[in-house]
Amino acid sequence: MSETYSSAIQIARDLIRCPSVTPSEGGALGFLEELLSGAGFTVDRVTFSDDDTPDVENLFASIGSGSPHFVFAGHTDVVPPGNETDWSHGPFSGDIAEGILFGRGAVDMKGGIACFAAAALDFLKSRGDEFGGTISLLITGDEEGPAVNGTVKLLEWAEGQGHKFDACIVGEPTNPAALGDQIKVGRRGSLSGTVTVTGMQGHVAYPEHANNPVPGLMALMSELDAVRFDEGNDRFQPSNLEIVTIDVGNPAFNIIPARAEARFNIRYNDEWTLETLKAKITSTLEDAAPKTLNWEVEYRRDASESFLTRDDALIKTLSAAVEAKMGRVPELTTGGGTSDARFIKNYCPVVEFGLVGKTMHKVDECVALSDVDGLAAIYRVFLDDYFKAAKGA
Amino acid sequence: MSETYSSAIQIARDLIRCPSVTPSEGGALGFLEELLSGAGFTVDRVTFSDDDTPDVENLFASIGSGSPHFVFAGHTDVVPPGNETDWSHGPFSGDIAEGILFGRGAVDMKGGIACFAAAALDFLKSRGDEFGGTISLLITGDEEGPAVNGTVKLLEWAEGQGHKFDACIVGEPTNPAALGDQIKVGRRGSLSGTVTVTGMQGHVAYPEHANNPVPGLMALMSELDAVRFDEGNDRFQPSNLEIVTIDVGNPAFNIIPARAEARFNIRYNDEWTLETLKAKITSTLEDAAPKTLNWEVEYRRDASESFLTRDDALIKTLSAAVEAKMGRVPELTTGGGTSDARFIKNYCPVVEFGLVGKTMHKVDECVALSDVDGLAAIYRVFLDDYFKAAKGA
Repeated sequence: MSETYSSAIQIARDLIRCPSVTPSEGGALGFLEELLSGAGFTVDRVTFSDDDTPDVENLFASIGSGSPHFVFAGHTDVVPPGNETDWSHGPFSGDIAEGILFGRGAVDMKGGIACFAAAALDFLKSRGDEFGGTISLLITGDEEGPAVNGTVKLLEWAEGQGHKFDACIVGEPTNPAALGDQIKVGRRGSLSGTVTVTGMQGHVAYPEHANNPVPGLMALMSELDAVRFDEGNDRFQPSNLEIVTIDVGNPAFNIIPARAEARFNIRYNDEWTLETLKAKITSTLEDAAPKTLNWEVEYRRDASESFLTRDDALIKTLSAAVEAKMGRVPELTTGGGTSDARFIKNYCPVVEFGLVGKTMHKVDECVALSDVDGLAAIYRVFLDDYFKAAKGA
Repeated sequence: MSETYSSAIQIARDLIRCPSVTPSEGGALGFLEELLSGAGFTVDRVTFSDDDTPDVENLFASIGSGSPHFVFAGHTDVVPPGNETDWSHGPFSGDIAEGILFGRGAVDMKGGIACFAAAALDFLKSRGDEFGGTISLLITGDEEGPAVNGTVKLLEWAEGQGHKFDACIVGEPTNPAALGDQIKVGRRGSLSGTVTVTGMQGHVAYPEHANNPVPGLMALMSELDAVRFDEGNDRFQPSNLEIVTIDVGNPAFNIIPARAEARFNIRYNDEWTLETLKAKITSTLEDAAPKTLNWEVEYRRDASESFLTRDDALIKTLSAAVEAKMGRVPELTTGGGTSDARFIKNYCPVVEFGLVGKTMHKVDECVALSDVDGLAAIYRVFLDDYFKAAKGA
C-alpha cells in the first residue's frame, strides 16, 4: 500500500533524487525552477565562473514586490556519498523506511529547502499576493565546494538586480539533537595563520655549526596557545585558538633541520575585529620571540569576521514560531562552524535554523518525516507572523 | 714533464681511480689485495650478506704472528660524487694539480689507507719479519652505507679466525684544519627516539569534542629540550639533545589533528650509559606529562654507547709521532660524529687519526700532497715506536 506524503516530504524526496554533488547541478535547480515558477515566482538561473574553479549554477526566485523583503538561503549541492555500498539505502534513492527519509542532503540541506518551499507555497496559496511583501529564495550550488561561484556572487548579482533584503533565514541544520534546540543568531569569526621559524641546517654532532628552529617555534606556539583571548560574553563562547599542525618533515635523525612551521586557526567572538585580533597575535609572538630568532607570521586571506544578529524582531518571530510548534523555547547560539550566513550578514540581518544535523556528511544521512513536517510548519508560522507584524508596524 | 710521486701518493691515486661508491667494490679491494699480498701479507676477501641490504665485500690483511697485534681500520667505499660536472677534476680521475690530489675519497678515506699502506710497507722493508709483532689492515666496503655488512661482521669474522688485536688506529679524517690538529680518543654515544602524543581528531569549531595533541607534545619536548644533561668533563663536551623533527602532517586549517610526533637525537658523553640516559629521558617526560596525556616514547635500536680510549701508551706513541713530524702537540678530542671506532672499541683500544676533513663528502674533495706524505711519515714513525716500545716492555 502506497502512502501519501506531505508536500514538504515529497519535495525533499525529489531533491534527494537529484545527484547534485558539488559542482554538479544534478537536476536539483531545474526541479526547483519548475516548482517555484509554477507557483508564480520569477526564477533566474545564474551561472558564475572564476579562475581555477568549476563553473557553478545558482538560482534566485522571487515573488511579490513590496516591503519587507524576506529571503530564504540554502544550497542544493551536497558532499560526495563516499562508498555507496556502505549506505543501507542508496544515497540518491530518497527511500523512506519506518518514518525516516534517507539520502545525501536529507538534512544538509535539501530537506531544509523543501520545508521552506512547501511553507512558502502554502503561505502564498492562503494569502495570495495580498501579503504585501516580497519572498525570495537564494539557492546556491557551491556551498560545500570552494564557495567561490556561489552565495558571494549571487548576493552581488541580486543587489545588481535591485533587490534589497530585510531579513534572512539560512536553512542549515542548526539543531544538535532535536528540532527546536537552537537558532543560530551569529557566528564566531575565523582566522588562520602560519608561523615559520628559520634556522640553519647542520649535523647533530656539530650543533655549534647549526641553529635548530624547533625549540624557537615551540616557544612561540606555546605562548600563543596559552593566551586567554577573552572570557566570552552572553552571546558568544570564549575565543579559542588551536594549533592545527606543526611540521618540519625531516626524515633524518642526524640532521638538525633548517626550518619549522606551525599553523593555527582561531574561532573568535565579537570582542575582537579581524584587525585587533591580528594585532594581538602578532604582538604575542613578538613579545615571545628572542631578538635573534628568525620568524614570521602570515595570515590567510580566507578569514571571516564574527557577527551577531541585531534584529530582535526577526529572532523573536522565529523563536515564537518554534515555541508554537515544538512547545519549547530554542536556545540562541553563536557556536559551531561557518556557513554562508557570513556573507549574507553584509546585506541584511540573518539567522540560521533548519533540521537536526546529527547525520550530516555521514553515511546514511537521513531525516525523520516528523521533523520535515515540523520544520515546514515552523517556517509557515514564521511567514505568517513575519508579514503580519510588518503590516501591523 | 712527468713528476715522480711518493708511494703513498701513488697508492692514493690508484685507489681514487676505483669508482667504489657504496656498495660497489669498484676495484679498490682488488688493488689493495695485490699490493699487500705482494709485500707478504696474507689477504682474505670476505663478502657479507644480510636481509634488505646489498652484499658487501671486505678485506682483511695480516702479516706477522707475534704480539703485539696492531690493526689499522678503514674503508674504501665512498659517498656518491653527485653531479660530476660540478667537479673541477673528475671525481674518479685522481688528477693532481698544483700540489693537490683531487677525487672522491681523497681524504675520506682512500688517502688515509694509502698513507698507512705505504708506511707499513716501508716499515716492513726496513725491519723485515724481525719486528716481532703483527700488523693487520681491516678494510670495509660498507662504512658510508648501511654499515651492516662491514666492520661489525668483519670484526666477528677476524675474532673467529683467532685474531686478537692490541691496538687500533682508524684512519678517518680527524683534523679540522691542518694535519696534526686532533687525535680522537673516544666518541660520544648517540641515542635517538620518537615521542608520540595521541589526542582526538575533531573540527576546530568544536574543540570540546576533540583533544589537540600538539600543545601536549610541545610541552613534553620543551621540557626535554631544557634538560642540561651534564656539564661535560675534561675529555668530553656536554651531552647535547636536538629535536630533529616535529610533525603532524595535517593539511586542513579547520581540523584538530589526532596525533603529533617529535623525534630527537642526543650525543652523550661518558657521564651516562645508554640505560641511565634512557631512564633520565623517560623520567623527564613522565614528570612533564599531565596524567591525562596519552603519550609514549620509543627509543631506536641503532643507539651507540660513548667510549673513551684508556690506552695511554697508544695515545702517547701516536701523539709523539705527530709532534715529531708536525712540530706540534695534537689536541685529544671526543667531539664530532660517529665512526666504525664505535664497533672496534669492543675489541681493543682505538684512536682515530687521519687527514684533514674539510672537503670530505663535498664536490672537489681533495688533499694536499704534502699532507699525504706527512700522514704517511707520522704512521711510519708510529709503527717504529709502537713496536720498539712493545719489544722494550
